[in-house]
Amino acid sequence: MEDFAPTIMERLDALAAISAEAGAITRLYLTPEQARADVLVMGWMREAGMAARIDAAGNVIGRLEGAVPGAPAVVIGSHLDTVRDAGRFDGPLGVVAGISCVEALRREGARLPFALEIVGFADEEGTRFDAALIGSRAFAGHLDPAIMARTDADGVTLASALRGAGLDPARLGEAARRPEEILAYLELHIEQGPSLERADLPVGLVTAISGATRLSVTLTGEAGHAGTVAMTGRRDALAGVAECVLAVEARCVGEPDLVGTVGTVAAVPGAVNVIPGRVTFSLDLRAPDDAQRRAALVDIEGAWAGIAARRGLKLHRTITHDAPSTPCDARIAAHIADAIEAEGLPVLRLPSGAGHDGMAVSRIAPIAMIFVRCRGGISHNPDEFASLDDIEVGTRVLLRTLRGLAADRASAGTERA
Amino acid sequence: MEDFAPTIMERLDALAAISAEAGAITRLYLTPEQARADVLVMGWMREAGMAARIDAAGNVIGRLEGAVPGAPAVVIGSHLDTVRDAGRFDGPLGVVAGISCVEALRREGARLPFALEIVGFADEEGTRFDAALIGSRAFAGHLDPAIMARTDADGVTLASALRGAGLDPARLGEAARRPEEILAYLELHIEQGPSLERADLPVGLVTAISGATRLSVTLTGEAGHAGTVAMTGRRDALAGVAECVLAVEARCVGEPDLVGTVGTVAAVPGAVNVIPGRVTFSLDLRAPDDAQRRAALVDIEGAWAGIAARRGLKLHRTITHDAPSTPCDARIAAHIADAIEAEGLPVLRLPSGAGHDGMAVSRIAPIAMIFVRCRGGISHNPDEFASLDDIEVGTRVLLRTLRGLAADRASAGTERA
Repeated sequence: MEDFAPTIMERLDALAAISAEAGAITRLYLTPEQARADVLVMGWMREAGMAARIDAAGNVIGRLEGAVPGAPAVVIGSHLDTVRDAGRFDGPLGVVAGISCVEALRREGARLPFALEIVGFADEEGTRFDAALIGSRAFAGHLDPAIMARTDADGVTLASALRGAGLDPARLGEAARRPEEILAYLELHIEQGPSLERADLPVGLVTAISGATRLSVTLTGEAGHAGTVAMTGRRDALAGVAECVLAVEARCVGEPDLVGTVGTVAAVPGAVNVIPGRVTFSLDLRAPDDAQRRAALVDIEGAWAGIAARRGLKLHRTITHDAPSTPCDARIAAHIADAIEAEGLPVLRLPSGAGHDGMAVSRIAPIAMIFVRCRGGISHNPDEFASLDDIEVGTRVLLRTLRGLAADRASAGTERA
Repeated sequence: MEDFAPTIMERLDALAAISAEAGAITRLYLTPEQARADVLVMGWMREAGMAARIDAAGNVIGRLEGAVPGAPAVVIGSHLDTVRDAGRFDGPLGVVAGISCVEALRREGARLPFALEIVGFADEEGTRFDAALIGSRAFAGHLDPAIMARTDADGVTLASALRGAGLDPARLGEAARRPEEILAYLELHIEQGPSLERADLPVGLVTAISGATRLSVTLTGEAGHAGTVAMTGRRDALAGVAECVLAVEARCVGEPDLVGTVGTVAAVPGAVNVIPGRVTFSLDLRAPDDAQRRAALVDIEGAWAGIAARRGLKLHRTITHDAPSTPCDARIAAHIADAIEAEGLPVLRLPSGAGHDGMAVSRIAPIAMIFVRCRGGISHNPDEFASLDDIEVGTRVLLRTLRGLAADRASAGTERA
């Protein structure tokens, strides 16, 4: 096999140089930076023999027809937008690795029993409009039109930003693909966590994109003077929250793949000499299995109710986000597992705790993901790093998976014939 | 005995009507509101037969000479400034009750073996210049001249504010009283806590103004993605802080008069989907006994060190405030206890967890305090309330204490003679 990684890294560097901020990587949805990145990516796609276009939502789509023109496609996708001051791998790696696979298949003159599409989604991070997956949700035909009125930090609506990028908000629906057009969706992405590094493995097989529940919780007790209210007479909301935080940790720590995080906390009145009368905190709870997540939530809320009752605190909670798990397709996953084993590696199966475009695409196609090890689990940060060797293995696994899907499809075609 | 409380309440109402904000009570140091309140108070002092003046720091001082003019004084004091949106009792009650005692003594033609001074300190709360006790520290001759450069929220320096009030910053030192001028300092104040209410008593005897140590503490762990970092691989600074908060509570809860409060907490980065990498919180620790407070601090810091070590967190702490306890004088306290018993009441001894002018005055004179019950322990709030009955008892106790001190002084004089 050839050496994919040097070209991939060159292309990632070229994309990293396109940014709204000097010395940092920041490419937001529907910005001039994104337009410049799109031109670059479409150039690589065309060099690889693909027809390249930008869809009605701003997604870049390259298509290589298979043996029969107009056939359903296997889609390899990831995203081209970034968070602010991002790393260079999160998103672009999956797009660029996909293009390398197309180049390899074309060089060897492979005739595929399906079309192959490489998609660079235009909004996954949601940085600009504080709404993630706009690109892939439009692609899956599942974007609420109400989102058009959403504004960025400068008050520009999504509709107006689309027009500014030469797109027509009224025609956004044209980005939607029909399920019969897509055979499978494959995504290669850096892990953004430390599991592969800890297992000393370059790649891993994603079992599911974890479902997530987010709560905003307020405990209300009684504010009071830090000097004059005896300990036994207090209804200290922060002491209650301290117990709640530890209850989350205790419930999640023993169960693999379940993670619970209290990321925000705010005490009112928040003065050094006042007993906190009201504290608001967040919970982010994720698991690859929905029943597992729901059971943990029931237990955590039960523990919280006990804490509140014992301390005379009032608890109020709001669900701010609730998304089910997106399981990866077993058949595609089997091909990925075969591909990893063909590289002489053990198959580490792990959930994706982070969200990905596949969550949206799963509405119209079976999805699967390959993770590539990233150093220190660090992502959304300039220090984000994946090695040439790991990228090489990841891209080979992606290509082998494509071959596996092609062989499957060819034999199925034969059976049907 | 006469009925003090109706007049006292009328005067408190009159003072409450003097405010920088309509519908609220806000009288800050060296403001036009304070000047209007001073005029009112000096008027009452003069009606009561006292010589009244404003000293170099803006404190209002009324003086009733004793049997021998120019004799050392017993001082009854409290403060006339308020927090923003204050109650009507915190401060003014002690000044107005003192004036009522002078009126009573004068009506009966008492010849006291000391001068009697009523002082309305101009700054106790520290609301305007974020520095408490400016009035009483100047009175005690213990105000760091560097404070002159301190500014209020509008950038006005203390020096400039003094000039604006017709005072000369260069002559602030003239507010300082010599220890030989002051025999004793007595203060009547609402409790600002719930102990008297819980004991169903109108008044209490303060044993000490608690010493206080305040820390700013930072725990540093490692930020990470809430979805991708397994529970066992986390160094969650907020989970560590949760344990630290509970360690404070656990150490303080079993020991009477010791109080520990975590009033502020701030998590960084503070996002719902990010494990907190750094959390800063405050500790406010108070006790009437300095050794008790120091021992608790050692235990708490020991517990914190253990928590940090076990969780792989880095702990950094800064002492932001450290003030020793101000014990009340045993001889004056004995007179207060006698006075309370003379009212047919049991003597509840309790520390003052809140700070008071006596802390500053204790540098030049023995001090003692009488607490009056306040409803719900609520203070620094429009709902602050003390009943007519309780104010009556408190003022009677104050007057009886004065008589006790007078009898003491007279017999001592006799013995000396």
